[in-house]
Amino acid sequence: MENDVGAEVARHSRRILVHFGGGSIKTTGLYDRVAASLNKAGVEFKALGGVKPNPRLSLAHEGVRLCRDNKLDFVLAIGGGSAIDSSKAIAMGAANDGEVWDFYVGKRELTRALPVGTVLTFPAAGSEASTASVVTNEEGWLKRGFNSELLYPKFSILNPELAFTLPKFQAACGATDILSHLMERYFTNSRHVAFVDRLLEATMKTVIAQGPRVIANMTDYDAWAELMWAGTIAHNNLLNTGRVGDWGSHDIEHEISGIYDVAHGAGLAVVFPAWMKHVLHHDLDRFVQWSVRVWNVELDIFDKEATARAGVARLEAFLHSIGLGTTLASLGVGTDRIDEMARKATDGDKRRIGNFVKLDAAQVAQVLKLAA
Amino acid sequence: MENDVGAEVARHSRRILVHFGGGSIKTTGLYDRVAASLNKAGVEFKALGGVKPNPRLSLAHEGVRLCRDNKLDFVLAIGGGSAIDSSKAIAMGAANDGEVWDFYVGKRELTRALPVGTVLTFPAAGSEASTASVVTNEEGWLKRGFNSELLYPKFSILNPELAFTLPKFQAACGATDILSHLMERYFTNSRHVAFVDRLLEATMKTVIAQGPRVIANMTDYDAWAELMWAGTIAHNNLLNTGRVGDWGSHDIEHEISGIYDVAHGAGLAVVFPAWMKHVLHHDLDRFVQWSVRVWNVELDIFDKEATARAGVARLEAFLHSIGLGTTLASLGVGTDRIDEMARKATDGDKRRIGNFVKLDAAQVAQVLKLAA
Repeated sequence: MENDVGAEVARHSRRILVHFGGGSIKTTGLYDRVAASLNKAGVEFKALGGVKPNPRLSLAHEGVRLCRDNKLDFVLAIGGGSAIDSSKAIAMGAANDGEVWDFYVGKRELTRALPVGTVLTFPAAGSEASTASVVTNEEGWLKRGFNSELLYPKFSILNPELAFTLPKFQAACGATDILSHLMERYFTNSRHVAFVDRLLEATMKTVIAQGPRVIANMTDYDAWAELMWAGTIAHNNLLNTGRVGDWGSHDIEHEISGIYDVAHGAGLAVVFPAWMKHVLHHDLDRFVQWSVRVWNVELDIFDKEATARAGVARLEAFLHSIGLGTTLASLGVGTDRIDEMARKATDGDKRRIGNFVKLDAAQVAQVLKLAA
Repeated sequence: MENDVGAEVARHSRRILVHFGGGSIKTTGLYDRVAASLNKAGVEFKALGGVKPNPRLSLAHEGVRLCRDNKLDFVLAIGGGSAIDSSKAIAMGAANDGEVWDFYVGKRELTRALPVGTVLTFPAAGSEASTASVVTNEEGWLKRGFNSELLYPKFSILNPELAFTLPKFQAACGATDILSHLMERYFTNSRHVAFVDRLLEATMKTVIAQGPRVIANMTDYDAWAELMWAGTIAHNNLLNTGRVGDWGSHDIEHEISGIYDVAHGAGLAVVFPAWMKHVLHHDLDRFVQWSVRVWNVELDIFDKEATARAGVARLEAFLHSIGLGTTLASLGVGTDRIDEMARKATDGDKRRIGNFVKLDAAQVAQVLKLAA
C-alpha cells in the first residue's frame, strides 16, 4: 500500500513534488511513511502542503514555481479530491509556459502535463481515477473544472485504513459526492443504456448501504473498502459508456462553494434534491425507475409522480440520516445572492448548464429557491 | 468500426496473421471489409481460416508456422471466443520456441507473446477483453485454459451489427456463456464483496433481459449492444475485484465439450443448474441473495432452501426459454462416460476443481448424474 509508493513513483521519476493538505497526514504518520518509501526508492522530493477544500489557484501557482525551479517532473498527491485536483493543476502548469487558469476557462488546449500519482485518504471526488481537475480562482471566486486524458493518474493507492481518521462530516460529504457522480450520470436523455443504468443503480445502492456504516463506525475497514472502490468506479468514466450525463447540479454547487466555501458534498446535498424537483417532469419514467430500483419505492402506475417524489424524499431522508442538511439555510447560505450565483453559473445567462435539462439563469435561480 | 481496423493494427505491426473460423465472414463481406482496411493502412497479412468451436491445437500449430515462416508479428482474430482463443495460442507459440501446449498444462511460464487484436462477431466468451485462452488438444481430447496479462488484446472492435447473422442457437449459447462467467464469479467464499456482488447482479439482470430480445429479433441492434458490452464487462476481470470465483462448472463443461464437441454455452446450460443443486447447502444464504436479487424470487425466511431452489428453477426456465436444454440427454450425451469425464476433470482424482466447493472425481460424477 502507501509503503510501496516509492517503488511506484520510481517507475516514472526521481525528482517529484509531494502535495497535500493540512497537518493531518503528519499527525497520523502517513507523511513519514510516504517520505520513507520515497527515500528508500531513491526518489528526491520537495513538499508542498496547505491544500484547502475547493483548492485555490494561488497554491497551484506556488506548486508550478516549485516544479520549475527544482526541475521536478512528477506530482504525488496525498489526500482527497482537493489535493489531487490541485496536483493536476500543478502538473498542467509545470509542463507548459503561461497561465494554467487558461486551460480551465477554455482559452488553451492541453497537449502535455506532468504525470501524477495519488495516495487517496478520502473517497469522494473520484479524482484518483478521473481525467478531471476542479480549482477555484480567488480573483472573482470562480470555480471551474477541466478534463483531459493527460490528467489520468499513473497510479493510485487506495488503502481504506487511511480514511479512519476523517471527521464524520467529511465522510458524509464524500458519500454524497460519490452518490452525486452516479446521479449526474443516471439522469440522461440517452436511450438504450439499460446495462449501464443497472451498473449505476448497483453502485448507488452500494453507497446508500455502506455510507451509513462508515459514519456509524469510522474504523469499519470493510465498509470503507466498499465505499472507496465504489467512489473510484463512480467516476472513472466506465459508467459513462453510451450516455451523456447531466452535471447541472455540480455546476450549480460550484457557485455555492465558490462563494461561500462550503464543502462540495454538503453543497450537493442541498442542490440535488432541489434540482430533481425542478426537472422531475422532464422524464418522469426515469425518475420512477430510479425510485423503484435504487430506493425500493413501491411502483404506483396510477401515480407516477408520487412514485418519483417518494424517491427524492428517500434521498433527502438518506442525506439527513448521515448528518447533512438539504437546504441553503442549513449551509448558512442566504437567498440574497441567488441571482448572482445563477448569472455566474451561466456566464451571465450566455450559456445553459446541464444536459438532461438545459437550465438558463432563471431556472438555476428557481432550483436554488427550491433549496432555500 | 471494422472499417478502421487497419489503422488500429498499423499502430502495432505491418505484417500480421488474420485468423478466423468458417466461411461466414466471407459471405457477409466482413472479411473483404477488414482486408480492404488493412490494405489501405499498408498492413500486409496472411489469412488462416478454419477455426472450429472448441478450437484445436493443431490449427494453432499451423498458425504458429505461418507466423514464423512469414515473420508475422501480430495476430488479428475475426470471430468469437474460438477465433480469439486460437489467435492467442498462436501469439504464444509464435513468440516462443518449443511446444505451445506446454503453457496450457503448466509446464512452462509465458514471458512473451505476439500482440493480438480482435474484431468480435459473437458476444460470449469475453475473450476480446480477457487474459484467457482455451484450446483443445486432439491427442486425448484435452481442453485446457491458460491465463496471462500478455494475452490481453491490444484492441477489440465491438460492432453489434456483426452479430445479426448468427444462428439463434449460437446466440443462446453466447448469452449462457456470459451468464456463466458472472455466476462463476458470484458464487464465492470471499467475504465483504458487497459492491462487486451488486455489479455482478446488475450484469446478470442485463443478460437475462437482453438475451431473449436478441433471440426474438436477431437484428435488434440495441439489445445486441447491451448484450455485447455486458459480455465484455462480465469477463474482463473488473468483476473479480476482491473475490475468488468458482469455475468448477467451466471445468466440468470442458470435459463434456472436449469429448462430445458440444457448444460450450449449451454444455454450461446443462452443468450449471446441476452444479447449483449439488452445492446449494454450502452457502444457502448466497443462493438466497442470488434468487431474490437476480431472479426476483420472493424471500421466504422460513424456507431458505425453497427460496434458493426457486432461483435455480428460474435459471432453468430462462435457459429453456432461449431454446437450450438442461440435461445431458438434451445434448445427446449419455451417462456411460461420466466417470471418465470426472477422472479427466480432476486429473485422475489427483486435483479438486472449483473454489466455492472443491469437488473431487466422485462429486464431479454426482454433478453430471444430477444433469443426466
